[in-house]
Amino acid sequence: MAGPGSSVAERVLAGDVRAAAQLMRDLDDRLPEAEARLRELFPRTGRAYVVGITGAPGSGKSSLVDRLIEHHRRAGRTVGVVAVDPTSPFSGGAILGDRIRMQDHALDPGVFIRSVGTRGHLGGLSRSTSEIVHVLDAMGKDVVLVETVGVGQDEIEVAELAHTVVVVAVPGLGDDVQAIKAGVLEIADVFAVNKADREGADRAVRDLQAMLELRRTILGRPPPEQDHDACHRPVRPPPTAERVPDDEWEPPVVRTVAVRGEGIDDLARAVEAHRAHLEGAGGRRAREVSRARAGFVALLRDRLLAGALARLEAEMGHLDEVAARIAERAADPWALADELAARLRG
Amino acid sequence: MAGPGSSVAERVLAGDVRAAAQLMRDLDDRLPEAEARLRELFPRTGRAYVVGITGAPGSGKSSLVDRLIEHHRRAGRTVGVVAVDPTSPFSGGAILGDRIRMQDHALDPGVFIRSVGTRGHLGGLSRSTSEIVHVLDAMGKDVVLVETVGVGQDEIEVAELAHTVVVVAVPGLGDDVQAIKAGVLEIADVFAVNKADREGADRAVRDLQAMLELRRTILGRPPPEQDHDACHRPVRPPPTAERVPDDEWEPPVVRTVAVRGEGIDDLARAVEAHRAHLEGAGGRRAREVSRARAGFVALLRDRLLAGALARLEAEMGHLDEVAARIAERAADPWALADELAARLRG
Repeated sequence: MAGPGSSVAERVLAGDVRAAAQLMRDLDDRLPEAEARLRELFPRTGRAYVVGITGAPGSGKSSLVDRLIEHHRRAGRTVGVVAVDPTSPFSGGAILGDRIRMQDHALDPGVFIRSVGTRGHLGGLSRSTSEIVHVLDAMGKDVVLVETVGVGQDEIEVAELAHTVVVVAVPGLGDDVQAIKAGVLEIADVFAVNKADREGADRAVRDLQAMLELRRTILGRPPPEQDHDACHRPVRPPPTAERVPDDEWEPPVVRTVAVRGEGIDDLARAVEAHRAHLEGAGGRRAREVSRARAGFVALLRDRLLAGALARLEAEMGHLDEVAARIAERAADPWALADELAARLRG
Repeated sequence: MAGPGSSVAERVLAGDVRAAAQLMRDLDDRLPEAEARLRELFPRTGRAYVVGITGAPGSGKSSLVDRLIEHHRRAGRTVGVVAVDPTSPFSGGAILGDRIRMQDHALDPGVFIRSVGTRGHLGGLSRSTSEIVHVLDAMGKDVVLVETVGVGQDEIEVAELAHTVVVVAVPGLGDDVQAIKAGVLEIADVFAVNKADREGADRAVRDLQAMLELRRTILGRPPPEQDHDACHRPVRPPPTAERVPDDEWEPPVVRTVAVRGEGIDDLARAVEAHRAHLEGAGGRRAREVSRARAGFVALLRDRLLAGALARLEAEMGHLDEVAARIAERAADPWALADELAARLRG
């Protein structure tokens, strides 16, 4: 056990909750020392199994996460949780009403829960979340659950952080939700139909299975490779290109009623089966490379932008003044960006 | 009227639908010529009034947009629509089931509808959407409606594109949705409680009004300024810092039943009132500066990153190999990012 005289990194590695919480706050505030601590910890990370829990608002993800914590604790595993709440006005420390039950775990030293907002963060969700996952991993948490509210880009970023992605669906939502299912199909390793005691649960399960069936029939016919030039090649290809071997894994559909604790063992078993599959097929490493790449690109982008903006302000005027000239159509943003990039190069 | 021998830019400025559609596709494919065309058009943009329509999945945004198109057409205004669907697997050209009705407008030359996905786009939503808004603006559309599915970062980006943001709420969703309301409160200029014939509509309206009341009482006490260092200062401050004069505008709450066309005139009047308020108070310009700034920063970030990644691949190895070394904890991503940034500087 690291004592109070130990370094922050040593204390985090020893599982010290206060040192970890302080480091997370400092990372949130983007203190340079915090980054140095994270760099010390980084070589000792990579052990935790990361599970993403994602789905539409109102699907009961928080209750599901709560039950999964209980499940893992009963099995003797330590658990870290990152609850990503981009809608929270409490940047970096959101507590939602429906998260109050989760605070039951607050006294359990085997559980560490951290909420994260995105307001005011340029690097956004993926960078903050990734850093917190690293800290939880360094603390020695066996399992890290990453919960996201929302649909869209967030889910894709979660998919890159997680080894296994659980998509939570819920019976009886409208057409938009069907569209969401289509979108998340590519990132889901396991589907949970939560609130499965509600009317429409059978239909929700059938719909998902029909979509999976459809996917099976079209697999082997990936969309044609787009002809991107070198400068504009997306650095983060669509998830499917990364996530081997998706064509060998059939995402199971599990029914849960999280508020009553029903189906949780089934869900945990499905996640475990996916993990075994991944590890057997080399997919875990592929996902870790994908995650490392996304993290590195985000870091590089932030570094470059910060340097360029400092140069801009020193040489071309305050960003707001430059923006005002662009808004008046008195300056060409493309020409300015090119000029600034050229100046940075020499 | 620009003839077939005219340049692409001239044809777009003359409102030519085929030239505009082709340019949007070329922008999607990131063809360098497309960017050159956009640069030609840029000085002629800035006339359209941009309205963001955002809210949770299932709130009936598409029907609302459909009705708003009808409303503006009856008033003799031309309309552009960007339907942002980050969940669509059909990158750059999504057609949702519930958008089929909107295709009724397909034969109306005064309406141009473009869907946009985000898959595989590094610059993401805001850049693609912003470019399409510029093209619609250059075509001479009087009003541009930007519809987003989802919650979170997307909404903040819409807020930066739009002069007026309409947040669509719906009665009877769960706690998560209450949290969403809290999050979007800061970006909403007008609230529409859609499906207002449903049970719970009164409560939804009251909840929103209570939150607005709460906001009024806390206004004048903004959160303390965070002490960011120069390198990590967020280039995009939280929306409230930008959106003057939010403290003088009280977002109205309007009831609508989009599928029956009820409340649409009220909603349009509320948007018009906000527009008059903005223009009276200088807020329109402030929003345009904010939008120009966000667009410029995104452009600069993409340019710098593309250059850095080309250099990386030339000097340090393929990005996937670098990522693999990071995943094995054999390389330090911070050190690599710093080294690459230093090399770029000369």
